[in-house]
Amino acid sequence: MRTGDPLHVRLLRLLRDEGAVSRAELGDRLQMPRPRLVAEVERLVGLGYVAEAGLAASRGGRRSTLVELNPRLRFAAVDLGASSIDVEVVNGRLEPVAAYAEPADIRSGPKVTLQRVNELLHKARADGAYERLDAVGVGVPGPVSFRDGVPVSPPIMPGWDRFPVRELLTREHGCPSVVDNDVNIMAIGERHGGVAHSVDDFLFVKIGTGIGCGIYLNGEVYRGTDGCAGDIGHIQVDPNGPMCSCGNLGCLEAVFSGAALAREATAVARTEASPALAERLAARGAVTALDVAQAATEGDVTCIRLIRDGGRRVGGVLAGLVSFTNPSMIVIGGGLAQLGHILLAEIRSVVYRRSLPLATGNLPVVLSELGPRAGVAGAAVLASELAFGEAA
Amino acid sequence: MRTGDPLHVRLLRLLRDEGAVSRAELGDRLQMPRPRLVAEVERLVGLGYVAEAGLAASRGGRRSTLVELNPRLRFAAVDLGASSIDVEVVNGRLEPVAAYAEPADIRSGPKVTLQRVNELLHKARADGAYERLDAVGVGVPGPVSFRDGVPVSPPIMPGWDRFPVRELLTREHGCPSVVDNDVNIMAIGERHGGVAHSVDDFLFVKIGTGIGCGIYLNGEVYRGTDGCAGDIGHIQVDPNGPMCSCGNLGCLEAVFSGAALAREATAVARTEASPALAERLAARGAVTALDVAQAATEGDVTCIRLIRDGGRRVGGVLAGLVSFTNPSMIVIGGGLAQLGHILLAEIRSVVYRRSLPLATGNLPVVLSELGPRAGVAGAAVLASELAFGEAA
Repeated sequence: MRTGDPLHVRLLRLLRDEGAVSRAELGDRLQMPRPRLVAEVERLVGLGYVAEAGLAASRGGRRSTLVELNPRLRFAAVDLGASSIDVEVVNGRLEPVAAYAEPADIRSGPKVTLQRVNELLHKARADGAYERLDAVGVGVPGPVSFRDGVPVSPPIMPGWDRFPVRELLTREHGCPSVVDNDVNIMAIGERHGGVAHSVDDFLFVKIGTGIGCGIYLNGEVYRGTDGCAGDIGHIQVDPNGPMCSCGNLGCLEAVFSGAALAREATAVARTEASPALAERLAARGAVTALDVAQAATEGDVTCIRLIRDGGRRVGGVLAGLVSFTNPSMIVIGGGLAQLGHILLAEIRSVVYRRSLPLATGNLPVVLSELGPRAGVAGAAVLASELAFGEAA
Repeated sequence: MRTGDPLHVRLLRLLRDEGAVSRAELGDRLQMPRPRLVAEVERLVGLGYVAEAGLAASRGGRRSTLVELNPRLRFAAVDLGASSIDVEVVNGRLEPVAAYAEPADIRSGPKVTLQRVNELLHKARADGAYERLDAVGVGVPGPVSFRDGVPVSPPIMPGWDRFPVRELLTREHGCPSVVDNDVNIMAIGERHGGVAHSVDDFLFVKIGTGIGCGIYLNGEVYRGTDGCAGDIGHIQVDPNGPMCSCGNLGCLEAVFSGAALAREATAVARTEASPALAERLAARGAVTALDVAQAATEGDVTCIRLIRDGGRRVGGVLAGLVSFTNPSMIVIGGGLAQLGHILLAEIRSVVYRRSLPLATGNLPVVLSELGPRAGVAGAAVLASELAFGEAA
């Protein structure tokens, strides 16, 4: 909680994160004189954000009334991936009251994709998950102008450039909405309810189909001048490496990512180096990053080597970023976080060896706690912050 | 000027940066009701920060009085390099009223070095540059705990670890003082009075004896969790490169920096590859980075290649940092900025080719405007900010 924020935002956040609180405790916690607090609570009750919730346990004198967020509050949280849609409707405390996850191709364009998002949300309403939404938060897999609420030149999202995502959702659902990059919302989720809880300076590294990084500095997401900060997938790690989708050679995500690992594993499966992968290829006609993870846990040395090679590449890039930003924590998430402790051990080893000792003296490198839910969790936080800010 | 800062700080900054201003204009500029402004000015006059400066030109009605910073205000600005001491005493408008520059070895330790700083400042007082100092700002060539005012594990500063620099200067000069990393103060100087004037998000890359980076994000210097953010000199650029002073192989500053370039140029001078360098070696027994710069401007192809190779290395690291932070500008400073446009052209070429197009669409990569004065200029700004903050 930043004390620079207005009182009503701090109050609503406290009720969101801690549930019902007595007026007396609210006054203590927000260091607010009683009359001003009472007036503010009344105002927020009038606006429909806050409700009475019975009497608190006695503190000796007159029993104080509990207040909580209005049980009717609802936020929609949407996480659009390269090949998936995740939608949740959550209450004021950010607890899911409806959740949908399905495969989808972001390349089918904004109209088809957002149409499906709207259908899922209307279905949630028909199922009784909400009467009306108070805000919608959306993450998309590409750079976003946070101010304008539009994707900006997103490489893997044909047809989405400058598409008015925010405007369309706001019109459809009659509430404010907010659009951000998918890695940023994962970082926001992890900071609110995951392993980075209340850590002010950390990097959230997503290793999935592509690779990206959410950056928390001084307790705020840092998005950069054009909204594309954190695009570490195209840092060159091998000048003689494979051609990347961006046209350069040896980018991190051309060398190690879900797509790169599946490609390399398929090549390996055709040789005699990995019986485990060869078996999977024969059985299903393809191998994926997940196959590599499973074969590695079964002790397949080639798969262990593939993961360690990748970890070394990621670690090399992160070592530079640690020297550059001197963060308090690194969180590894995204689909390839399933590669687990073999990957993590290799990343740690390179980061600890190659960064300035002062910067790594007390630097945890850990796996995401929220896993695949990090994105929707963060989108829900963003939506709630937007709604709270509007309660002016 | 950030509007979140208290009125008195905004007022003092305006007088620092623009000189004498009428009360009427001050009220307009700070969007402050006249009575409150008049009271605030009176208070600052009483505290000795502000003084009357005659009548303003008529705006039609009664002529408004001009106010300015008290002409007696003095700040000391100190830039400690690996091999130099720069000291300036400046007035409230940050104009130098005394300046000293001399060679010094930071490895002689904090007592000897700060003793010399104090001698120079006492000499300035004896020469009439000031009666008393209002604040001292100091930059040192290593990581600093900004909060504690002490260097922290600085690699090239034996004996300085946790030495109470701030406390010693405060006691000696009877005024508040502030200690920061040398690259940070260069960035602060360049933002206040140089090419990055009022740019909120930029990287200041110092290429000198070592290599470091000052980071401005959202209009503030970003110092990292332990004060060592921006330490890009130890990012690995060549796993088979030369051993660095930090013990790792192929760090950027082991491959290209003042020290590395002088070493490489000396080796070249002993061959027949560069007549220009061979001649300088014969004449003076050693060659420096500056010799390489001069020979390059005379057309020596080997020297041009040395500079271009270095630029390519620096550019490769910066390309990654541009993808990561998406800044609005990159400023190149430090001693090797003297290598000038050959260096700059190579850095630009790599950054523009290798970073995300969205991040480089409008990204100037420019040379420092303040050159060797960037450090003291920034130390003076820091000192003034400290003093203004104390005028509470």
